[in-house]
Amino acid sequence: MIIFGERVNGMYRDVRAAIKKRDKDVIKRIVKEQIDGGVDVTDINIGPVRGDPVDNFLFLVDCCREVTDKPVSIDSAKPAVIEKVVPKIEGLKVIINSTTAEPEVMDRLVPIAAEKGGIIGLTMDKGGVPASVEKRVECGANFLMKALESGVPIEDTYIDTIILPVNVAPKGPGNVMEAIGQLKMVTAPPPHFILGLSNVSQKCLQNSLLNRTYLAMAISAGLDAAIMDATDRELVEAAVTAEVLMEKHLYSDDYLKAWRMQKGI
Amino acid sequence: MIIFGERVNGMYRDVRAAIKKRDKDVIKRIVKEQIDGGVDVTDINIGPVRGDPVDNFLFLVDCCREVTDKPVSIDSAKPAVIEKVVPKIEGLKVIINSTTAEPEVMDRLVPIAAEKGGIIGLTMDKGGVPASVEKRVECGANFLMKALESGVPIEDTYIDTIILPVNVAPKGPGNVMEAIGQLKMVTAPPPHFILGLSNVSQKCLQNSLLNRTYLAMAISAGLDAAIMDATDRELVEAAVTAEVLMEKHLYSDDYLKAWRMQKGI
Repeated sequence: MIIFGERVNGMYRDVRAAIKKRDKDVIKRIVKEQIDGGVDVTDINIGPVRGDPVDNFLFLVDCCREVTDKPVSIDSAKPAVIEKVVPKIEGLKVIINSTTAEPEVMDRLVPIAAEKGGIIGLTMDKGGVPASVEKRVECGANFLMKALESGVPIEDTYIDTIILPVNVAPKGPGNVMEAIGQLKMVTAPPPHFILGLSNVSQKCLQNSLLNRTYLAMAISAGLDAAIMDATDRELVEAAVTAEVLMEKHLYSDDYLKAWRMQKGI
Repeated sequence: MIIFGERVNGMYRDVRAAIKKRDKDVIKRIVKEQIDGGVDVTDINIGPVRGDPVDNFLFLVDCCREVTDKPVSIDSAKPAVIEKVVPKIEGLKVIINSTTAEPEVMDRLVPIAAEKGGIIGLTMDKGGVPASVEKRVECGANFLMKALESGVPIEDTYIDTIILPVNVAPKGPGNVMEAIGQLKMVTAPPPHFILGLSNVSQKCLQNSLLNRTYLAMAISAGLDAAIMDATDRELVEAAVTAEVLMEKHLYSDDYLKAWRMQKGI
């Protein structure tokens, strides 16, 4: 399980304020908490903060670099911002989060990923987030082909089949699992499959219960990465337990402890 | 989700003592607690108690009848015991738990089920519990054919793909889900799929975490019934949440409460 930490996001009030004030201590504390929870990659999203987006991103990257040498993912829906930010990042592996499956977007972003690290491809195109399994699979396959032919290593290639909130898209959780299952059959070895997990319970009560239940289900379908809150201990334990049950880790009475030791946390 | 209560089992010390002493109050309290937790069917197993097994079973059935009119399942590996007990049960629907896929066992038990209620078929034959998915599917299909041709309604037909403890059979959890997926494609509408859930964590630490994580995963594969401890509230909530995520229940902010109201608990 590759855990992307979701917490360095300008959508959170404390992060937003810290970006504006250039308060490194706040951001560094959040990054550290996520790393201590088991994060492998820190996802960075400036959210709705005003000012130069490139400067804001690079400030957050600097905070990360002072805490960890683990990779960062640059999370923006604006290809022009990603194009400017990613080449400026030195000394850390970078994963682009994300490209759509639109050819003109992939043409801009995938070559940068081949140079700097990895990339997440969303299974959507001009038509938006697909309602159907088939369209998700088609977008995922197009992205995968582009990533492979551009020289992005398969182990740095992530497909995000896009989970929507269960209260507005009740068929989404099932469709996403179905799409992962079908896309897993396209290549051997397969790419990684990732989701922005918290989306499934956006504006729902019982967020934490919904998140950890869905994470276990999606892992049984082939999910092996998630953008999530690594400080939610029950969530992390559900993920590790699901992986034991899928024989990704060996069971021992101390399997939770063994997982933490392996992470160095 | 059809919940079979696992607690009226002579393997538990209090149940064993109550059977010996014919102490109805203890058993009735346990049955009541399970019903209050959401049980649909009370599984009855006399465990290793000495004395006449038929009398012991009928004592436990009497206790159930005094608390609820919900069905019972008669849980024994001995066809001769089931043959004697089940015809003597009046006024309650009975599910036989269980038959193997051996023709001579099915020939004895399936016709009784057609008359008295339903039956659970274990996906095993003379060779014991299969290691492979394929053999599980073969046994399940043979049982299903026998149940259908004998007139057991499909809604009273359960296939148990047999989960073994993850600490001794690490491929088991994945194989069981795969077998359920394949067997679901055999008939439309499909039979029920059931597991003796606690088996997955037998002699493991973290039983409760393993059980609820696996239950969510198995529900996404098609499981719709389980023999389980309905007083484990986190387990029941994981099941209901998984069913919401599979669109078996509609999401609402009060979905857990709605589920309980629907059950009348």
